Amino acid sequence: MNYYPKTIRNAIRSISKLPGIGEKTAERLALHILRAPRAEAEQLARSIVELKEKTLLCRRCFGLSDAPVCGICSNAGRSEHMLCVVEQPSDLVSVEKSGAFNGLYFVLGGTLSPMDGIGPGELRIRELASRVAEGSVREIILATSTTVQGESTSAYLAETLKRYPLKISRIASGVPIGGDLKYVDQVTLRRAMEGRRDVT
Amino acid sequence: MNYYPKTIRNAIRSISKLPGIGEKTAERLALHILRAPRAEAEQLARSIVELKEKTLLCRRCFGLSDAPVCGICSNAGRSEHMLCVVEQPSDLVSVEKSGAFNGLYFVLGGTLSPMDGIGPGELRIRELASRVAEGSVREIILATSTTVQGESTSAYLAETLKRYPLKISRIASGVPIGGDLKYVDQVTLRRAMEGRRDVT
Repeated sequence: MNYYPKTIRNAIRSISKLPGIGEKTAERLALHILRAPRAEAEQLARSIVELKEKTLLCRRCFGLSDAPVCGICSNAGRSEHMLCVVEQPSDLVSVEKSGAFNGLYFVLGGTLSPMDGIGPGELRIRELASRVAEGSVREIILATSTTVQGESTSAYLAETLKRYPLKISRIASGVPIGGDLKYVDQVTLRRAMEGRRDVT
Repeated sequence: MNYYPKTIRNAIRSISKLPGIGEKTAERLALHILRAPRAEAEQLARSIVELKEKTLLCRRCFGLSDAPVCGICSNAGRSEHMLCVVEQPSDLVSVEKSGAFNGLYFVLGGTLSPMDGIGPGELRIRELASRVAEGSVREIILATSTTVQGESTSAYLAETLKRYPLKISRIASGVPIGGDLKYVDQVTLRRAMEGRRDVT
């Protein structure tokens, strides 16, 4: 580090703060940027600033967006009757990548976790209820994680929303595709047995 | 990529242009920056811009510097009688990291490579000669690579500089430390035999 002038040391220090990037890699990247065309370095710097400044949360689904209402919520081709509830914006992206869902989303903002002081008031449960009260949603798919917190959040939501005339479903859990039964844990296998489907 | 708003897509695209960083890693880094404090993202962006804008070449040695004369050239504690000639600024850093040299450097800017149109005029050979003509240098250490181009550049420099009253040396080549003879190539082994030293 000390073998470089200050400008390079600063860049190495900033870059190595990124997750999974050590000092050696940061050094390599800094020297690359130094050799790269000025426009490329400026574009990189600008995109980092804009990433922070211009990324918003969609006011409908609370997912990541660059406009007040995101591309999914404003897409008339998607079914407004199905609402998939996820924990975080990144979970929305995961479901979206699967290509298995053509409805709308709602990002809860986390899971219930009394140990960490996160109760229903810390999540967007009130916002979810008013969204449902609008009346266009006919099915809620609870796509929180299958962790203890995700499961209990899902159960809590199912209980809270049951006063609305809705179908409420939970994503299936079981053996992952490509999974060898030898390596699947017992809880998952028990779930897979309980959730078995008739194939005859 | 298309599952993200434009600000995030732009950041992913810029970050994934860096060497050794694929789209998956770029996605992870962009989402990290999005969650990181604003000051950290701005610091990263600023250091990238300053890296390009404020890094200069030292006018004595042509190494990387943030001032007209670099920290090594302006360090009175280093011997001005020894001058180590390297190809690139990064080679200067490599020699410096070894801690084996306390003299000054001269960055040539490349190696002779007639096939690529790089002759003596394209390198800083004239600048090196005038540096030597100043009179304080007593030994030149030729530390170009041990590639074909590096070797021939070294030979060319030795020939060009022999009219000055100088000791001219070349870094040793041989078996790398920790190297198993089984895996050392024949040319290196031949060099190691030729360059053998008396240990009695």
